[in-house]
Amino acid sequence: MSNSDLRYDIIGIGNAIVDIISHETEDFLIRHQLVKDSMSLVDEQAASAIYDEMHPAVQTSGGSAANTMAGIALLGASTGYIGKVKDDELGKFFVHDIEAIGVDHLVKPTSSGPPTARSMVLVTPDGSRTMNTYLGASSTLYVEEINSEAVASADFLYCEGYIWDVETTKKAIRLAISIAKEAGKKVSFTLSDTFCVERHHQEWLELIAGPVDILFGNEDEYLSLSGCQTLEGAIDWIRGQVEIACITEAQNGSTIVTAEHIIGIDAHEVDRVVDSTGAGDLYASGFLFGLIKGFDLQICGKIGSQVAAEVITHTGARPQSPLAEITQMY
Amino acid sequence: MSNSDLRYDIIGIGNAIVDIISHETEDFLIRHQLVKDSMSLVDEQAASAIYDEMHPAVQTSGGSAANTMAGIALLGASTGYIGKVKDDELGKFFVHDIEAIGVDHLVKPTSSGPPTARSMVLVTPDGSRTMNTYLGASSTLYVEEINSEAVASADFLYCEGYIWDVETTKKAIRLAISIAKEAGKKVSFTLSDTFCVERHHQEWLELIAGPVDILFGNEDEYLSLSGCQTLEGAIDWIRGQVEIACITEAQNGSTIVTAEHIIGIDAHEVDRVVDSTGAGDLYASGFLFGLIKGFDLQICGKIGSQVAAEVITHTGARPQSPLAEITQMY
Repeated sequence: MSNSDLRYDIIGIGNAIVDIISHETEDFLIRHQLVKDSMSLVDEQAASAIYDEMHPAVQTSGGSAANTMAGIALLGASTGYIGKVKDDELGKFFVHDIEAIGVDHLVKPTSSGPPTARSMVLVTPDGSRTMNTYLGASSTLYVEEINSEAVASADFLYCEGYIWDVETTKKAIRLAISIAKEAGKKVSFTLSDTFCVERHHQEWLELIAGPVDILFGNEDEYLSLSGCQTLEGAIDWIRGQVEIACITEAQNGSTIVTAEHIIGIDAHEVDRVVDSTGAGDLYASGFLFGLIKGFDLQICGKIGSQVAAEVITHTGARPQSPLAEITQMY
Repeated sequence: MSNSDLRYDIIGIGNAIVDIISHETEDFLIRHQLVKDSMSLVDEQAASAIYDEMHPAVQTSGGSAANTMAGIALLGASTGYIGKVKDDELGKFFVHDIEAIGVDHLVKPTSSGPPTARSMVLVTPDGSRTMNTYLGASSTLYVEEINSEAVASADFLYCEGYIWDVETTKKAIRLAISIAKEAGKKVSFTLSDTFCVERHHQEWLELIAGPVDILFGNEDEYLSLSGCQTLEGAIDWIRGQVEIACITEAQNGSTIVTAEHIIGIDAHEVDRVVDSTGAGDLYASGFLFGLIKGFDLQICGKIGSQVAAEVITHTGARPQSPLAEITQMY
């Protein structure tokens, strides 16, 4: 594409990861001392040790912000993605999938350094997912690799909290945030994981008080961030700190909080939760797509719930059905 | 394992392949001039050209005989598998999955030569699968790599017709067949694909008149092999040529033919066929498991239908649910 017509509705930035997913019992988590429903960073050796004991796996492209961009592209908006892979087999798989779904991949795969990131995702019988991520090449995203023109062109920037775990990528995301703000664009941010919130508590409080306009997270993440004991307390705490805060609450739906309004959104019903991986990511897809289209917040939340419902009914964190019919409802 | 306690219920031999599966419209097949529901051999470049146009894909371990062995292991019999991969990412994925399911992988991954085999599997909305296979490392299985002690130990040998396409692997499978026969064991064989039957017609007629005891194939494959116009004609033709012939007929179930009996087996009902990849392979799993356990042919066929039904209700050619409950029914 020529630089002159570079314009996106939204650009996402995050760790570019391939998910290696298997269904395991709770015993597996206990045996490996894993905290259910959380993400642990592991080195290549530990990832391999877990993999050795896993059942046969399905491999699908993942990465939180990448999943969100994939959902938005399927809904019909123009999206770009900043996340780094190596040009190895997993990297080619990741790039193929994100481009096939219609997202522009804006970082050249590297030919040196660690291999493409992978996450060993253990899905337990209740549909919970416990992730063990080896960051590999994704942790080598440098500030020079942020396509500033693309970021400045987009109405929204979407940032993944996970990327805060590495100093190199944190610098890159901070640059992207400053480019977006200077261009007068909206910055959205997802809290990603309770442990992530704990690791970066002070910095994220400053970020939320500063450049972040739209905040995503689940109930536990908001409790951890706010230091509150109850959801009501956390709602009260976040209210007015950011323009829009979305709190996802699994089967209890979600709450959208602005300075003026608190809007409750029902969860979209499903027969059975097969694999909850990507539920939060795809809620963000639906919600942000609604904002891009200028829908009111209630509709944005409803689209979020619908898209999240699609992704939890099958194995893998990206939609397997066309989502266009959802948008035709509004 | 020490060589002294080497003993298997069954050993399978075939092309060790990783499936890269996407859902596509019929238009995709027309555009690429692909024959629906068949397997085409492609070179690395052609595989890559198809991949470039595919939707986001799911990657799962496949390979016809490997799928059959996986099903038998899940049902609870002791199985080994002879099929070659390279020690690259796809090869490690394949070996992990087959061992995790409980099958002994009996060929050392190679560190040189072409990469691990992959098949681009295009699933159309009716659940049909059209495969484009790059054989890579799987086509370099040499006679020296046949573990003769393991083959001789097994009550059954299971051979995949696909492997006949390459002179090297054909020699290896012929050796395995002669070892099994000399040890007084049963040889089973699957016709794999109509085009495969056409390519090897004369040799397979001799094989069936010779060492093959149990033959698997679908209706089209039997018609092509027999030269008959009708299923009745083909049944009449195969009757008595092999000890047991199984003819799978998709939603119409299957027919088991021996010199004395023709047994009709109903298909096991499913709500929706998501992806028919592996249906024939897993029918063979169920049937052969029944034989291993000494069940009568009607029960063998019923188990075959049940196991095939499991695999067509999700994407991917290997079972995703435990199969032990099926065997507890008999």
